[in-house]
Amino acid sequence: MPFQFHEESRDPGSQARTGRFSNARGTVQTPVFMPVGTQASVKTLRQSDLETLDAKIILGNTYHLYLRPGHELIRELGGLHKFMSWDRLLLTDSGGFQVWSLAELNRIDDNGVRFQSHLDGSYHTFTPELSMDVQLALGSDCVMAFDWCLDYPAERSEAEKAVRLTLDWARRCRTAFDAGAKLPDSDAALFGIGQGGVYADLRADCLAGLRDIGFDGYAIGGLSVGEPKTAMWDMVEAGMPHMPEGAPRYLMGVGTPEDLVEGVRRGVDMFDCVLPTRNARKGSVFTSRGRLVVKNAVYARDERPLDPECSCYTCRRYSRAYIRHLFQVGELLAQELATLHSLHFYLSTMRRMRKSIESGTFGEWSAAFLDTYRSGDVD
Amino acid sequence: MPFQFHEESRDPGSQARTGRFSNARGTVQTPVFMPVGTQASVKTLRQSDLETLDAKIILGNTYHLYLRPGHELIRELGGLHKFMSWDRLLLTDSGGFQVWSLAELNRIDDNGVRFQSHLDGSYHTFTPELSMDVQLALGSDCVMAFDWCLDYPAERSEAEKAVRLTLDWARRCRTAFDAGAKLPDSDAALFGIGQGGVYADLRADCLAGLRDIGFDGYAIGGLSVGEPKTAMWDMVEAGMPHMPEGAPRYLMGVGTPEDLVEGVRRGVDMFDCVLPTRNARKGSVFTSRGRLVVKNAVYARDERPLDPECSCYTCRRYSRAYIRHLFQVGELLAQELATLHSLHFYLSTMRRMRKSIESGTFGEWSAAFLDTYRSGDVD
Repeated sequence: MPFQFHEESRDPGSQARTGRFSNARGTVQTPVFMPVGTQASVKTLRQSDLETLDAKIILGNTYHLYLRPGHELIRELGGLHKFMSWDRLLLTDSGGFQVWSLAELNRIDDNGVRFQSHLDGSYHTFTPELSMDVQLALGSDCVMAFDWCLDYPAERSEAEKAVRLTLDWARRCRTAFDAGAKLPDSDAALFGIGQGGVYADLRADCLAGLRDIGFDGYAIGGLSVGEPKTAMWDMVEAGMPHMPEGAPRYLMGVGTPEDLVEGVRRGVDMFDCVLPTRNARKGSVFTSRGRLVVKNAVYARDERPLDPECSCYTCRRYSRAYIRHLFQVGELLAQELATLHSLHFYLSTMRRMRKSIESGTFGEWSAAFLDTYRSGDVD
Repeated sequence: MPFQFHEESRDPGSQARTGRFSNARGTVQTPVFMPVGTQASVKTLRQSDLETLDAKIILGNTYHLYLRPGHELIRELGGLHKFMSWDRLLLTDSGGFQVWSLAELNRIDDNGVRFQSHLDGSYHTFTPELSMDVQLALGSDCVMAFDWCLDYPAERSEAEKAVRLTLDWARRCRTAFDAGAKLPDSDAALFGIGQGGVYADLRADCLAGLRDIGFDGYAIGGLSVGEPKTAMWDMVEAGMPHMPEGAPRYLMGVGTPEDLVEGVRRGVDMFDCVLPTRNARKGSVFTSRGRLVVKNAVYARDERPLDPECSCYTCRRYSRAYIRHLFQVGELLAQELATLHSLHFYLSTMRRMRKSIESGTFGEWSAAFLDTYRSGDVD
């Protein structure tokens, strides 16, 4: 069963919509938040936890998995799903963002990007063709085209160059993906990624160019890299009309709970972000009433759960006082419990959002959600 | 329901026996291995994991919990069971061993031990009375008398002094425990700890002295601290006849899977040790065929579970190749999966041992178990 996307309902007062995409592995209802499993693990969680949280798709990182354990090893062992024991969908990024943000760059030219590993300084070159080969070796369900991410701020000329490279590479990715050897039973879809910095016309041009090439899904990349939030939403709005309605629209690397609502309002179908997992490991969790820094001393005697409104494993069983103690003494269970909670909050927020769109009440629901969330009334 | 112990069956060919002890919280079948939850957490595991593993009793550490979060805080919040959400039995050690092994000692006299915290250098004095107060504040089900642990090697005069102190403190513990304020619904039992270094007659004298005072259970302490294994078993054998048959007999801080078999053969009912959990976190797990250092490169492409004979969560779902990768890249999931496996191996080994004693086949079972375990044939 090849990859398919269908829109299912639309909010009368905004661009918010629900839909679903599916392949032989399963179905993902959108709008969706995808937990990030950088190194073939959503940090601190077991794959059964993600099933319990009802995550239907998670991310893997091409750059990290290429370096360790190596894509050829994963191909040899039957692909990433089998390697990590995850039979639901996987999206892999292109490696472009990590090369840009983590590696020591040596040279960028039309061919690709030469860089040094952040681990051992070894030299590597990522090309569109290699990115496709790695992602096909992993057996990804949603393969991302290799793009060029721009620094913020960047001159217009730099942004133009990034768009030109990104479109050129997108064409090569399309060719390499179509010709590439797939793992058995693989139903991979290919997504294009739009760049263009904070220049609205370049964003539009890039996505229009991608649309001409033709992809199964379209992403807005290179945002949430330091630009003001208003600029980010301007770019999303600039790009949205140029992304086909019949394909999922993915805002990469975003964001806070508020961002999820604001993105959905503008028509975004897919999100990923390390925020819920990374912050949780540092002792800061997301709740219906805003962020709660559970490791703070004020919670030492607080017998309430992290979020009294929450039904996750952590909140059903443990107090703030206990979790605060675990952070205080450096017990790893602290990170697990906080991660379980924050991902539950993200995924259940997306479920509620979908339900409100289906019932035509997204406007009211989102206003109430944001009002409570912004109250910051966690104590 | 006060603490009770009953012997239930006895191996015809050795001192091995089965039994059970219970209070209002539940029943523990012996011989039993107790996972160590030093800081109110069995490292990397959730309390529900311990329930799934069918652990009926776990340890907490008086020294660590006294320092952080503090026993008064835990008392205020209703005791350790409630604080950590664990409603089965808890045994707390006396603090003596940690003061001896972790803290900077300042002065030992008849009154108690003055030491500096290993965390911040702050000064504290543990007395028998304080140890009882802390353990009663925690609401422990099995309270250990405050003892004095001996360095190895130690002169006979030092060992005699340790026995004298330990017996004197045991009497004070008995008094303080009996008079101390218990948490509501607490059914705490008090265990005495025998010392005596590697001097068999001192071991016997100490346990006989404890028996005269009268305790609910009896422990052999101060072993597995560097002495040869033969000396350890000599001390166990020297002590065993002096421990009442009607009370559980606890060999503290022991040991390897082989030690569990050897201890049970000599009549031991209870064990605790950090070995399965600590080694697991370092990438070394226990299997039916010996230790397996899963982080080794030889497992990079090994699709088998850690132990093909094992039915634990880890072995049902994950390969050595995946777990090796997780250790390699520093993912915390590695430590969780390895800990789950090794504790499952310890607890299921104890279940099998109990069954073999009940069916009168401990001799055959233990020979076969040790033969396979010692084969080291993990590859």
